[in-house]
Formats: sequence, structure tokens, C-alpha cells
Amino acid sequence: MPNVIAYIKTRDRPGLLQDVTRSLTGIGANILLSLGYVEDKMAVLLFIIEISREIEDVEGAIRSVVKDPEARIEVSYVGPDAVDILQDFLESRPELAGTLERVLEPPDLHDIILRLSEGAARRALAALSPRTLAWILEIADKQTVEGIVRWVELNRLLQALKELDPDEAVDVLQKIDEQLRRRLLALLPPEYKKQAGALLRYPPDSAGGIMTSSLPVLKGYETAAVALYHLRSGDYDIRDTIAVVDGAGRLLGLVEVSDLLSQPPNARLEDIARRPRVTVSPWEDQETVARLMLRYYLRRLPVVEDDRFLGVIAIEDVAYVLAEEAAEDIAKLVGSEVPVERYVSARIKELVKARLPWLLIIYLIESITANVLKSYEHVIARAAVLAAFIPLIMGTGGNVGSQAVGLIIRALALGEVSERSRSDALLIVRKELATSSIIALAFSLVGLGFAYAVSRSMLVALAVASTLFTVILFADLAGALLPLAARRAGVDPASVSTPLITTIVDVSVAFIYMHIALILLS
Amino acid sequence: MPNVIAYIKTRDRPGLLQDVTRSLTGIGANILLSLGYVEDKMAVLLFIIEISREIEDVEGAIRSVVKDPEARIEVSYVGPDAVDILQDFLESRPELAGTLERVLEPPDLHDIILRLSEGAARRALAALSPRTLAWILEIADKQTVEGIVRWVELNRLLQALKELDPDEAVDVLQKIDEQLRRRLLALLPPEYKKQAGALLRYPPDSAGGIMTSSLPVLKGYETAAVALYHLRSGDYDIRDTIAVVDGAGRLLGLVEVSDLLSQPPNARLEDIARRPRVTVSPWEDQETVARLMLRYYLRRLPVVEDDRFLGVIAIEDVAYVLAEEAAEDIAKLVGSEVPVERYVSARIKELVKARLPWLLIIYLIESITANVLKSYEHVIARAAVLAAFIPLIMGTGGNVGSQAVGLIIRALALGEVSERSRSDALLIVRKELATSSIIALAFSLVGLGFAYAVSRSMLVALAVASTLFTVILFADLAGALLPLAARRAGVDPASVSTPLITTIVDVSVAFIYMHIALILLS
Repeated sequence: MPNVIAYIKTRDRPGLLQDVTRSLTGIGANILLSLGYVEDKMAVLLFIIEISREIEDVEGAIRSVVKDPEARIEVSYVGPDAVDILQDFLESRPELAGTLERVLEPPDLHDIILRLSEGAARRALAALSPRTLAWILEIADKQTVEGIVRWVELNRLLQALKELDPDEAVDVLQKIDEQLRRRLLALLPPEYKKQAGALLRYPPDSAGGIMTSSLPVLKGYETAAVALYHLRSGDYDIRDTIAVVDGAGRLLGLVEVSDLLSQPPNARLEDIARRPRVTVSPWEDQETVARLMLRYYLRRLPVVEDDRFLGVIAIEDVAYVLAEEAAEDIAKLVGSEVPVERYVSARIKELVKARLPWLLIIYLIESITANVLKSYEHVIARAAVLAAFIPLIMGTGGNVGSQAVGLIIRALALGEVSERSRSDALLIVRKELATSSIIALAFSLVGLGFAYAVSRSMLVALAVASTLFTVILFADLAGALLPLAARRAGVDPASVSTPLITTIVDVSVAFIYMHIALILLS
Repeated sequence: MPNVIAYIKTRDRPGLLQDVTRSLTGIGANILLSLGYVEDKMAVLLFIIEISREIEDVEGAIRSVVKDPEARIEVSYVGPDAVDILQDFLESRPELAGTLERVLEPPDLHDIILRLSEGAARRALAALSPRTLAWILEIADKQTVEGIVRWVELNRLLQALKELDPDEAVDVLQKIDEQLRRRLLALLPPEYKKQAGALLRYPPDSAGGIMTSSLPVLKGYETAAVALYHLRSGDYDIRDTIAVVDGAGRLLGLVEVSDLLSQPPNARLEDIARRPRVTVSPWEDQETVARLMLRYYLRRLPVVEDDRFLGVIAIEDVAYVLAEEAAEDIAKLVGSEVPVERYVSARIKELVKARLPWLLIIYLIESITANVLKSYEHVIARAAVLAAFIPLIMGTGGNVGSQAVGLIIRALALGEVSERSRSDALLIVRKELATSSIIALAFSLVGLGFAYAVSRSMLVALAVASTLFTVILFADLAGALLPLAARRAGVDPASVSTPLITTIVDVSVAFIYMHIALILLS
């Protein structure tokens, strides 16, 4: 059971704190923390308690002693749901962040501080221990870190970085602009500089950027006992795997701790190391790394360059990569760039910059439809009802195209089909032709009936039905093949966004529909 | 370096195999496997080699001895890229699958077999060892497993299942229809039945469905030495963590192997166990589990029901959950149901069933636009050029709305904003109003100029510009708030697909644009 947080704002009266405390312990609560202050005759109390009863019981226990009908009483589990309550509390008493850090997880504290006004955030950050500040820096995105480093003294920043392992510190340094980063590196102990030099060489979204080199690396002639000794005494990120190398730093293989435990103490590491099935270069893209590890069920993937062992990528870090890449795919799919690392901390200027250029490009392409329709003005003037069906045809075609884009992006992402395989391309064309023929047939029948009912003109109904049929086939094939073409051209297939395919479909509908109508009318 | 595969199809001649073999060993290749047959005077050879040279060098070495200009020679790394070549090879000699399994990873073999014709797939499956067959069953999706169990004898299926740990076997059994599942369970050893009873209780996409109970579970009074003995000797899935429980099966905490190593052998487990910060119920949705583990950096999350410890969820399994959920989100976002587990194995009927209903629903809503526009037929008849801008306005509004949907779904997925927080909803409204005002202003200016240039009518230009302004504000707010509303209503926010928001926007555009035009024209 997670702990429970209770926030009470009521008119102050003597004995209030004692009454609430007694009532809470009365229902079996173990009070971990109680904070409070009085302002304008209003008492504000905050309790964090350990209890195995429901939220409602806690609220009832408090109400039974507070008795003020206008009191604001909020109770929730400590965690994401408590962010609102704690934000209100810290906004007026930010210096209490230092006390709250004892009972809150850093991710929750991070979310709260992100939502405070600048003044309150500064004071809350100043109240935190260096250890908690360090954690928050590690969790936060670039934008937030840039804000924090402006608000915190250099000395506290240094203290915080020293609380982190060198490779965690480098993660934070990657989010700080270069000038300040150099200043900090100059002030940090030499082992940080060494690590930074090694890791800052690689882009943050490459294998080198997400690997860790914090694991025991031992020579092949060492024994299982020595390896266990290292795992026991060292402070490593990866504590269940060791890397075994030869004299030249070439990787002989990995050994897991469970293998070590089942070996005699004098077993030589080179004899028990498992040759890695797959290795990657540090320059490899993180998404490729993630797909490789998922496909081959790898927990630790060695990173190797010029035959030298550099580190390993852990599957637990890949989970974060996947969450990030999924978010990026969604952003691209709906047609926006993805510089906005966190919505909550993004400035309006950045949101506009991420969205407007794409919208304008798509607008430019879409404006072709206006020119096409304008050139058929005489057709529409002769039968204005024709115009009534334009959105319906374009919408349907666009949706079919988007579905096809989604299906193929998904199949590519899961590694089910490959853009380099001729037989996969053929398989896709065959499947999509069959599927879209059925869909096109269904829609041209529905469209024929509907258009006739609305327009009472068989000519218009025929124009609608035949355009629907043609456009659905075209939209589906285009939607299915564009992601493949993008991947082949080395472009992320998710950038074949649904707005793009929708726009292409709109332009083709304008041409096809008007042309068919013209033929039928004359 | 991964191994290299070479496929050669050429006119047969005496000494061909020896020549190629000699040429390959000449450039330093270590030949792991060579297979070949002659058919219609054509020799087909397949080599799998270990080599530290480039693909091109291998191809050159082969060409230098084959010398037949019409020969088909294909060389690639063993892995996804080799699927095409191996598919061709196995299609004509499926029984060689048993030999290939020694040098291929099961995921690659799975992909190849999936692409074979039914006859070839049957024979290839019959040639595999039970161990490899078991692996393939574990990797394959429901549809593929259903195919495989029809093609393989019951006895071989049993043999394969016995090769797996009970909880892996249950994963496979979940993909088999109930009748056959019961028959198989009756024939399997009792420990499989027990495990199946425990795990089949939970849906596959719940915490209970993805947890593993294959880890040492020890009492609090046991010692570190006993725990290490269990890790050393047992065959567990999780070999770096033990669970510590009390006499009633209540979880006291988890202990990692690295903690055990640093403790004296007689340390009691209850003293070193770390109380879990978070636990989940087995009925919790897998996506919630994944978000929780990512948010709080948990590697092992205990699953507990009625105070009893059931098992743990491992972060490496969550990586698969995330990949799956991302794919599902994309499918929903473009408006299709997601029954199609694998595109390659999906039948046309299933593809149509996944796509058509959604398209028809959206078509129904979109058809309102036709009725609205029809009712303003007299307006369009008076100025046919008005119709020319309908797609442009709808497209732009729809794109703005889709972007907003994507941004908020992403922020919800990453846990940046919560649907239950009032202050988050306010923050979103504030940000979106500011962002969309700027975008709306930009577009109404661009729209004014463009519409005037095309139509040469200030009235039409004003109608276009003011509709664009209104619609962009509306589309953006609707797009941003609908995912929040969906989540609050307990619906997956990704089901607020972009086709849905686009359609809502289209209908409003039809109303607003025609109404503004009517007012301006009269």
C-alpha cells in the first residue's frame, strides 16, 4: 500500500493539530510527517501517513474532528495523484521542500517543482539536499535542467553532481549548455572528466549515448572468485554482469552473476564467458539498438568499436528509449516536429515553432485543391450539390490512407516486414490490393445510395461512387508504400505523417472528382 | 561481427563446391555450414561463415570462382536481412530447416517459416528439434501459433512444451484455443497444470499475465547463504532477485543478488530485504504497470493480491509491453481496431474487419458535412468559388486538431500531465489558447491573401480568413481536451483518433464557413 497524504485548510482553533493527529492514530495511521502553518487565521496542515485503510476512512476521520463545513480537505495516495495538493502547499511554503523530500519519491518532487512559480521553485530547490537535487537533475529534461541551473548556485550544482556516479553526472551535463558544462567539468574530480570525455563523444540518442561503462571489466585469466569479489565490493550500475576482455581490450564475452555462482571459485573467466551473439557500434541509432535487443531477447548488449569493448546497453534503459521513441513517432505521425521534450515545461514560442512550419507546408500542398476546384468553378456552378460531397470523399480517402500508413509503420517498427525485402513489398501490395478492393466496393455502394438520396441526381451519385472507388484504392496503396519508401530513403517512416497522406489524397480527390463530374455532365 | 550467409545459384559444374569452399577459406572464412543440391542442372549452394571481412569481399571471392555471368549470388549478414534468401532456399528444401537451426537464431527462423507456403512450412516445422519448435511457439503470435498447432503432431507439440519452463509453456498455451489447451494440459506433468492454473486466471495484458513467479521465494528467517544456494542451484527466470515473505505469504521485501554478496553469510533475509516502494494487483493493466516502473525506476515490481505475494514483473518484460502498446496506440490513432497481431500472418478478412467498421462510423459522422453543404446549396450556387476553399480550411483545422491530440496523448503517456489534476487541465487550456491564437492569426493572414488572390473577391477572402481563425482555435482546444476527457471516462486516450477529431472539425467547418459566407453575402 502506498502512503497517504492529507491536506487540510480550515479556520484555526486551539487544539486542532492534536485533534487531527489523535483521530488519525485512532484509525491505525502511522504518521510519517506532519507540517502546518497559520496564515490569515486559516490553518494549513499536511499529513503523510502509513495506513492500510481506504482513502475515504482517512477523510472521514479528519472530517469528524475538523467540523468546519467550509474546510478544504483533500486526501490521496502519495504519488502522481498528490501532485496537485503538494503544489498548492509548496507554492506558499517552498522552503518545506527540504522536509518533504524525506517522504516523496524524486519523480513526484520533480513534477511538483516543475509546476511552481519561478520564485517558489527557486526557494524549493534551495531547500533540497544535494542528493535530491541531483536526482531531479537526472530525471528532468533539457529545458527544465536549463531553468534549474540558472536558479541554483554553482556550488550547490557541483555538490549535486558529485553525488552522482560519473556516468550519471555526464547524463546531466549533456543537458547543460557547453559553456557552463566546461566550467563544471573543470571543477569536478578527474574521474568525471575522463568519463565525460568518453561519453560526450556520442550523440545522446546513439548506442554510445545510452550505454553504461559502469560494470566490472576483467581479463580472461582472472577467476570466478575474483569476479565475485569485484561485484561484491565495487559500486557499479550493472551488478549482474561482468565483461571479459583480452590483453588488447577485445571483448571475449559476458558472464552473468548466476553463471559465476554455479562455477568453482578457480574457474577462469575466459572459459565461462559467453561469446556475444550480437554487438553494436557506439554510433548506432538507439531505436535500432532497441529493436535488436527485443528481437533477440538480449538483456545486455555489448558496444564495441574498432574491436575495443566500450560498455553495455542494459534492457532496462531500452525501456526508456522505447517510451521516448513511441512518443516521438506519435508526434511525427500527427505532423509536428518533436523539440518539445516536456509539454509542461515547453514555452509557447517553442510549441509554435514545433507546429507552425509543418502546418504551413501542408497548407501549401493543400492549397492546390483550391486552385483545382477554382479551375472547375463552371462545373460546380452548374451543379452546386457536387460541392456537398467533396469533404466526405476526401475524408474517407484520407482515413483509408492513414490506416494503411499506421499499419505499415507498426509492422516496420515491430520488425515484421523489412523495407529491403522484395518479397515483403510484394506481400504488402497483394494484401493491400485485396483489402482495399473490398473496402472500396463497400464504400462506392454506400456512397452511391447516400449521394443519390441527398442530391436526387444519378449523375452526381455516379460521380461520387466512382471517385470513392478510385480514391480508396489509390489512398490505401500510397499509404502502405510511402513508409516503405521513406525507410529505404533513410528517412524515419513515421515522418510520413497522416496529414501528409491526407493532403496528397485531398489533391487527388479534387482532380479525379471534378474530372469525372465534368465527363458525366457533358 | 555477425556471421555471413552466402547463397549461390548457378549452372552446375564438377568441382564447384570445392572451388567456392577454397576461395572462402582463402579470405579467412571459417565455414560453419554448407548446404547444397542440384536441380535441373542448376546448383544451389548455401554457406554460413564466420568472417571479419566486409560483405563485398565475400561476394568478390565467390564471383572469382563461379564465373557464370548469369549466376545469382547473394551475400548478407545472418539476421533479418537474410530472411529473403533463406526463404527461397527453404521453400524448395524445407527439410533442411533442421540443419539451419544450428546456426540461426529462433526469431530469424520464425520469420522465415512464417513466409513459407503451407506445404513447405509444415515440412520445415517437422524437421525442427523440439527445443527450436518450442522457442518459435513462444515468439509467435496467436494467429501463427494456431496455424502451427494444426500442422504439427500432438506428440511433437507436447515434447516442445516440455522443453519450456512451466511459465513459458503457459505463455504458449494462452495462444492455443481452449479445447486443445485442456487436452495438452491433461498430458503435461502436474507442475505445468499448477502453474497454468495460477497464471491463466489473469488476462494476458494484465500485471498477472506478464508477471513471472519463477524466482526464489524464501522466509524471513532464512540466511543470505541459503538465498545464494538457491540462486546457484535453481533454474529460475529471475536470477538476480529473491522475494522474502513471512509465514502467511505476505511480502516482506526483495533482495538483490548484489546485496546478498555484500552481506555476511548468516545475515537474516528479513533484515536485509528492502520494503517495496510500490506493489501492484495482478488485475492492473499492463500499460499502467509499465508507466509505474518507468516513473519510479523500478527493475522488479512485486505483484500482490489480498496481501499475498504472487510474483514480480521484470523491467525486461516491460520493454516488450511498451513496444506492443506503442504499436497499439499508433493503430488506434489512425483509426483502426488492433486485432491484427501480426501484419504478415493476418488474413484479408481480419484486415477488413479491423478497418471497415471504423471507416463506416467516421463516414456516418462525416456525411453530416454533405447535408450541411446541401442545405447551403443556394449560397454555393451564388458564389461557386466558395467551394474551392472548403478542403483547405478543413484540412488546416484537422491538422491543428491532430497535432493537439498527439501532443496531449504523448504528455499523458509519459505521465507529464494527469487527467485528474485540475491545475493540469488549466495549464493545458492556457498553453493551447496562447499557441493556437498565434497559429490562427498566422493562418487567417495567409488565408486572406491566398483566398483573395484565387477568388478576386474580398467577401470570399474575409469568409475564408474568419472561418480559419475560428476553426483553428476550436480544433486545437477540442483536440487537446478530448484525450483528457477520454482518460477521465476510462477510455484509452489514443482512441481519440486523428480521424475522429478531423471529422468533428470538418462538420464544424461546414457550418461555420457557410454561415459566415451567408452573412457576408447578404
